[in-house]
Amino acid sequence: MTAQTLQADLTWIDGAFQADRVITIGSEGRIESIEAAVQGSVRRLPGIALLPGFVNAHSHAFQRALRGSAERFPTGAGSFWSWRESMYALVSSLDRQMLGRICRQAYAEMRDAGITTVGEFHYLHHDRDADFAFDDVVLEAASDVGIRLVLLQTYYSMGGIGKALGPAQRRFSTPDLGAYLRQLDRLAGRLDPALHSLGMVAHSVRAASLAETRALHEEAARRGLPFHMHVEEQRSEVEESLAAYGRTPMRLLCDELAPAGSLTAVHCTHTSPADMADFLSRGGRVCVCPLTEANLGDGIPDLSTAHSAGGRISLGTDSNARIATIEEMRWLEYGQRLRRQVRGALVGPGGEVASTLLDAATRGGAAALGIATGEIAPGRWADFAAIDLSVPSLVEVTPAGLLDAIVFGGGNRAIAGSFVGGKWRETD
Amino acid sequence: MTAQTLQADLTWIDGAFQADRVITIGSEGRIESIEAAVQGSVRRLPGIALLPGFVNAHSHAFQRALRGSAERFPTGAGSFWSWRESMYALVSSLDRQMLGRICRQAYAEMRDAGITTVGEFHYLHHDRDADFAFDDVVLEAASDVGIRLVLLQTYYSMGGIGKALGPAQRRFSTPDLGAYLRQLDRLAGRLDPALHSLGMVAHSVRAASLAETRALHEEAARRGLPFHMHVEEQRSEVEESLAAYGRTPMRLLCDELAPAGSLTAVHCTHTSPADMADFLSRGGRVCVCPLTEANLGDGIPDLSTAHSAGGRISLGTDSNARIATIEEMRWLEYGQRLRRQVRGALVGPGGEVASTLLDAATRGGAAALGIATGEIAPGRWADFAAIDLSVPSLVEVTPAGLLDAIVFGGGNRAIAGSFVGGKWRETD
Repeated sequence: MTAQTLQADLTWIDGAFQADRVITIGSEGRIESIEAAVQGSVRRLPGIALLPGFVNAHSHAFQRALRGSAERFPTGAGSFWSWRESMYALVSSLDRQMLGRICRQAYAEMRDAGITTVGEFHYLHHDRDADFAFDDVVLEAASDVGIRLVLLQTYYSMGGIGKALGPAQRRFSTPDLGAYLRQLDRLAGRLDPALHSLGMVAHSVRAASLAETRALHEEAARRGLPFHMHVEEQRSEVEESLAAYGRTPMRLLCDELAPAGSLTAVHCTHTSPADMADFLSRGGRVCVCPLTEANLGDGIPDLSTAHSAGGRISLGTDSNARIATIEEMRWLEYGQRLRRQVRGALVGPGGEVASTLLDAATRGGAAALGIATGEIAPGRWADFAAIDLSVPSLVEVTPAGLLDAIVFGGGNRAIAGSFVGGKWRETD
Repeated sequence: MTAQTLQADLTWIDGAFQADRVITIGSEGRIESIEAAVQGSVRRLPGIALLPGFVNAHSHAFQRALRGSAERFPTGAGSFWSWRESMYALVSSLDRQMLGRICRQAYAEMRDAGITTVGEFHYLHHDRDADFAFDDVVLEAASDVGIRLVLLQTYYSMGGIGKALGPAQRRFSTPDLGAYLRQLDRLAGRLDPALHSLGMVAHSVRAASLAETRALHEEAARRGLPFHMHVEEQRSEVEESLAAYGRTPMRLLCDELAPAGSLTAVHCTHTSPADMADFLSRGGRVCVCPLTEANLGDGIPDLSTAHSAGGRISLGTDSNARIATIEEMRWLEYGQRLRRQVRGALVGPGGEVASTLLDAATRGGAAALGIATGEIAPGRWADFAAIDLSVPSLVEVTPAGLLDAIVFGGGNRAIAGSFVGGKWRETD
């Protein structure tokens, strides 16, 4: 790609929309400078406001294939666990071609929703036993669509604390740490450095032993890679952990993981305030997935401490039942409002909420994934979500209220397209 | 309008999508027949699935003007009551021209969201004292946009139980029953029968006395008009009622209103299960507004009894902070999942949830508003939401899973346009 300059009507810089800024993007896809005016030709983006591209910090792309089929309850109500059975049935049916098609579909929908980076929490590794063929499928799908992808390569060795893997879980299997790390090294050699990077994951306390989790976390810190885990999404996980270890999953992680190297805990739906405070004091981050946590009937986490800690919250589309980061943003706040029966739960220093929510969808995700994105600033990737200022939902809104109107009143229809590393993709 | 025939790829009839049905629409805008094939020319709608047009049973259109300005909390968190102060400030600033522009904007956005009928819970009556000039503005805006409108003409005489109106509330004032009914009669003479109808409303137990509410409810039953009230949206309304009457608002209404004539109670966020069961046994209906109730930090109502009663639930966009009926549908279910921590809360007889949610957004609203719409069936208005089957969110979905995919995975981008009384309007 050649170097280029872009000038939208409005650009979100340092926490506010600024008019007519010119962004210069280098040939490698990073922002070189942002100026008030430049000599020479500029690519104008009339009627567009640029936000930092949204960072989807937690996705299982293959679950997009459950859309339209996971909302039937012939025996009455369902649960996370009955949903998991549907998901396992899907898992058993997939081959490389199908998975590739599903992932491309999910990633294309993400681009249409303004998502420019996805953290793919990837545990569906194998086509046949231990071939890790699906890891490559995911990387290829991201390259095909042109979405920035952090492959959060997931360790999965148990079918419950101390239990063997079930039949459907064999496709997730990472039999031991050595095999896992060999595959991680192999993947490191296959990445497109302009688009791909790696993270490390222990699936959950249900799927990795304490010793394995500890070793993985240490290795991630040694390699400087982000480390993610599912934590306390469902009450029964908390109960299983209490029964096996005498401690909640979050208590366990706080007690057992080395202080160096931070952890992004995904969900924290049932995390106690005391555990949460301890976790945050150790540098922990929280990824929340409002649409999925509602769809799965998980519950609403208490985010007051995480919000006070500043910049620790990120957002994920998780099951991809619906792919809409703007909707995730407002329901991040709305969940807290419903929990506490107040307005303005995740209020920032200036009294505004929308910028906290945008930060979760951008900077918070970039920090959780260890990627130089999430802000429109020199040195960052040129990843932008382009807002169409002419959509009816934004009519009669002033620039001062524009972010509020986007976050609380807008939706995917407001996304004209997005840039990843300076490359434009128009919404389908 | 001349008579016409329409044929979409799929049409929602009797609770399922049927292929290639031909709908014949009479010159007055009602469905005459639905057949498998007809002689003569047919207007084809390729790539489109028709749903019954969505019925928005509770709207305050003017509040659309708060978009982008009601989400700041300079003194920390806010509440329903601090939000109401912003709304009152807006109210004081409006004139006929501004109000007309705002209403047209809101109604156009509703059409874009697939809404074909709106129940406008209208209490903002006056430009100058007691001129009721704003009532006509609302009717004209609906005619301009071509949305079916039920003017839910609202009685408002107190600024709290036993309290005089505050300054901002003077624009809401209906000084006595006689003046209210004279204006209702005047409005009845101004309606476009193809598009407009009337309903009666006591704003809430806070804004109308018990005697006034009783008289209004009796008069609505006598006239065969729907009757709506705000009920128990906020805890302090419940407390105020307990202090003044020794009973909750819902208990009061069950005790005091004549059994004949049903009531649509809007919100019921804090209604006790016993009061709710009694209310339903008297034929009561419940209108829920998930996006607004989340935005205002109201809370999540317990809808298990209302759901069991069958067909009593409707949906409203209320404050119009966001206008998106598909999002309202899924969050109607998601609120219940989050409350109960299960999946499949509002399950229908066949184990499906999406059809319950669609019914709330169509038939439930039509019943609450007393309008022959909400189903694609002979004799009903030809009001349809047209779903674009080519949008990415619906790719790879089978017709059997299509409604699930729309409700749980779709959004406004899936709405290609809508028909009201057979007249097409393409999404902006």
